[in-house]
Amino acid sequence: MFPFKTSIQFDRQCNQSLYLQLANQIIQLIKNQTLAPNTKLPGSRTLAEELNVHRKTIVACYEELLLQGWIESIPKKGTFVPSSLPVLQQQKLSNSATDGLRERAGFSFYKNSVLSEKPAKKDDDFMYLNDGTSDGRLTPTDEIARTYRRISAKKMITKHLSYGSTYGNETLREVLVDYLNTTRGLHITKDNVLITRGSQMGIWLSSQLLLQEEDIIVVGNTNYDSADSTFLYQKSRIERVLVDEDGIVTDDIEKLCKLKQIKAVYVTTHHHHPTTVTLSAKRRIHLLNLAKQYNFAIIEDDYDYDFNYNHAPILPLASHDLNGNVIYIGSVCKSVAPVYRIGYLIASREFLDEAAKLRGFVDRQGDALLELTFADFIKSGDLDRHIRKVMKIYKQRRDLFCALLKNEFDGVFQFEIPKGGMAVWTKLNSNYSWATVSEVARTYKLEIGDWQRYDNANLGHNHIRIGFASYNEDEIYELIHRLKQTIADIKNL
Amino acid sequence: MFPFKTSIQFDRQCNQSLYLQLANQIIQLIKNQTLAPNTKLPGSRTLAEELNVHRKTIVACYEELLLQGWIESIPKKGTFVPSSLPVLQQQKLSNSATDGLRERAGFSFYKNSVLSEKPAKKDDDFMYLNDGTSDGRLTPTDEIARTYRRISAKKMITKHLSYGSTYGNETLREVLVDYLNTTRGLHITKDNVLITRGSQMGIWLSSQLLLQEEDIIVVGNTNYDSADSTFLYQKSRIERVLVDEDGIVTDDIEKLCKLKQIKAVYVTTHHHHPTTVTLSAKRRIHLLNLAKQYNFAIIEDDYDYDFNYNHAPILPLASHDLNGNVIYIGSVCKSVAPVYRIGYLIASREFLDEAAKLRGFVDRQGDALLELTFADFIKSGDLDRHIRKVMKIYKQRRDLFCALLKNEFDGVFQFEIPKGGMAVWTKLNSNYSWATVSEVARTYKLEIGDWQRYDNANLGHNHIRIGFASYNEDEIYELIHRLKQTIADIKNL
Repeated sequence: MFPFKTSIQFDRQCNQSLYLQLANQIIQLIKNQTLAPNTKLPGSRTLAEELNVHRKTIVACYEELLLQGWIESIPKKGTFVPSSLPVLQQQKLSNSATDGLRERAGFSFYKNSVLSEKPAKKDDDFMYLNDGTSDGRLTPTDEIARTYRRISAKKMITKHLSYGSTYGNETLREVLVDYLNTTRGLHITKDNVLITRGSQMGIWLSSQLLLQEEDIIVVGNTNYDSADSTFLYQKSRIERVLVDEDGIVTDDIEKLCKLKQIKAVYVTTHHHHPTTVTLSAKRRIHLLNLAKQYNFAIIEDDYDYDFNYNHAPILPLASHDLNGNVIYIGSVCKSVAPVYRIGYLIASREFLDEAAKLRGFVDRQGDALLELTFADFIKSGDLDRHIRKVMKIYKQRRDLFCALLKNEFDGVFQFEIPKGGMAVWTKLNSNYSWATVSEVARTYKLEIGDWQRYDNANLGHNHIRIGFASYNEDEIYELIHRLKQTIADIKNL
Repeated sequence: MFPFKTSIQFDRQCNQSLYLQLANQIIQLIKNQTLAPNTKLPGSRTLAEELNVHRKTIVACYEELLLQGWIESIPKKGTFVPSSLPVLQQQKLSNSATDGLRERAGFSFYKNSVLSEKPAKKDDDFMYLNDGTSDGRLTPTDEIARTYRRISAKKMITKHLSYGSTYGNETLREVLVDYLNTTRGLHITKDNVLITRGSQMGIWLSSQLLLQEEDIIVVGNTNYDSADSTFLYQKSRIERVLVDEDGIVTDDIEKLCKLKQIKAVYVTTHHHHPTTVTLSAKRRIHLLNLAKQYNFAIIEDDYDYDFNYNHAPILPLASHDLNGNVIYIGSVCKSVAPVYRIGYLIASREFLDEAAKLRGFVDRQGDALLELTFADFIKSGDLDRHIRKVMKIYKQRRDLFCALLKNEFDGVFQFEIPKGGMAVWTKLNSNYSWATVSEVARTYKLEIGDWQRYDNANLGHNHIRIGFASYNEDEIYELIHRLKQTIADIKNL
């Protein structure tokens, strides 16, 4: 008889029941032909004795194997490995460790050079520059979680647990209508609101619906890197237009419109990403008029509407759009925290309906529990109170960071103090390069990050965007300290 | 002087401060040229008196308008509407209500006929058939929310609040490695795991990476409707292969492979969707061998692995795949509830890395708080306990539903009792049509739903899939009662 006793091993610590452990091992033996076709298997009583397990375990195992088709029972003859079972063709494994790795795909697929690596694992010792994120320590996670739990415990919650609308939760859509009409001067109804997983999903959906191969999208000659990549993934053609101190130059967009059919213009009107400039009133109106005249879409990504230190927020283009040209995108990622994947796409009903259908394919639907939580968080005024609280703190951080950047580097950096947002558009003196600064900074445990993403058009402007909002006062001093050491080293090179 | 007093209205209940309300109304007046270019605005003192507000309000408003560029200040002359401000071209509005609706897009975009409407709003009086969803009343929402809150309150949580890995949370990936290796017989490491928002995102990502125009994907001649649509959205070509009582006929796939280059095969091995049959062991091995030989991908959607009433679950293809051919997709949507958007895509590292990059474009990242919550829920054994609990209940419901469907309709329906899952593949006697049943059922407040989606290949099989798991005993009786009334009516037609 085949030496089951030495071939089979049970792990009694394992969650898996004994009969399944046994079945899976016998399957392995059949698959690799250790148990060859037509082999007769021992009776259940015999095998139970040999393996020192209860007979029921063997019976259950054989039943399972029969059901799965790995063995067959021939009346009055016994149980056999079938003759017709095809042998599984496996690659030769050099050692058993390879078994668990599965490195290479056994098929071809489309690799897209646009898809770039995301930043690697972080090291606790290092300080990492970012392009303007909130400070997680100020996030009211506990308050939000309390609301989440209260909502989850409600009896009426059952109806929200199954498959729901691809537009997002009704209550949150209604709350957002009120909130956006009040704070952004929009004139929308619920039919204009799709709840997304943050701004990126809004850009993705818009991009899929607006752009096909060779379609033209206009962006600033510096532009938000993720938006650029999303448009390139669609194989659309990006036309870059000058951005000056009043934002994107709409006269240049007009010139383009006269030459070619433009599908869309992507703008970050409130604080242009990455340069932080605000689009002037005159250009806003010009852009809206161009969109109407030439029938293109304006994707208005209003990623940091809430943060203004010197003035009230300026109303978005969407508040002046009466012709259905604007697709307005926002989220709570900057004002609360990126972990809460709640955003919105606002557009004409016609476009929104199509976006909602597409969204069904992407991830079926949102998270109704989290959406209800944020409906409560916004409606109760907690969101506004949170924004007021952090805005004061971020303003102090901006002032400190800009003062140090101005006073401690003897003209190495040039910048304008940003009127809002969470980042400073910082120019390095053209005697130096960010490549060198990045390299040297690492010796002082400062990671500059991918500075090249701020210059996709290869303008050589020597700027990067430095976020200040996520660091407290001590950390700002520490950051400046490491940067000073870096610059001092470079000057001595 | 322009009649500001009668043109401007303040809403003192509104959250918006008075100066901004004023500014926005003046912007409207300038935009529609009620205040024409070169108009001189009254001094702040005069206007404050006329509007009966504090002078500071007017000063703040004018500062805001200056900043936004809507007015200009000429020294010693006063404040003016600029001459150069372009006029916003608006469509004629028939009445003010239209203002808030924005029906039509002012640009063209790609409508795709594949994108179909999702089911409309539900009516509380109605019973709705589904194709096999869990019962939300059995979902441990409160326990999960308690864990969510505990995790959110932890001090270490800060590092999870910002932008994170597009692969998903590390801890959940590690927990899933253990869980899937133990319960599904996989041999994976963390590098093979991408956390998704449920199975649909796994299908979407795979589809984007595998299929371009005219690429061939093979599916069953009946197949899960959403998968079909996702592949069609990619403009790929769907080849349909017979499904019999042993699952998809792999011999027919082999014939196809000899004729054409196949990119992928989509299978629901455990319980084929919609017919509920299990793919036999022989065909499993055959399919794996074909994939290796012809270098195609197998998308294995294991949507209901956990639910088996007569036998232990059968290990997925992915557990036998040593050549990197299988993309294994699953989620907690069936075993817990669809509202928890946690799923996984398991594949060779090479494919997974590309999927993770693409995922960054789709929605940037998952919800780390929810992912940590489910890491805890799975690791603690709570998930398994929950599955054991509901499985007993669903088995009773299956037995009751099948007994009634057999005994109460005098041969109108034909079906096999499903060995697992949450639905019965139900054939209507060919003397009747689901179109008629659907129509008549509505008079008894029973909504059959889109029965045509079960026959995308127009086979005329007259089957639909009826979920039983979401109804309790009383509801099953009520459902059968309404269906009996419907059938009685039809027999009397």
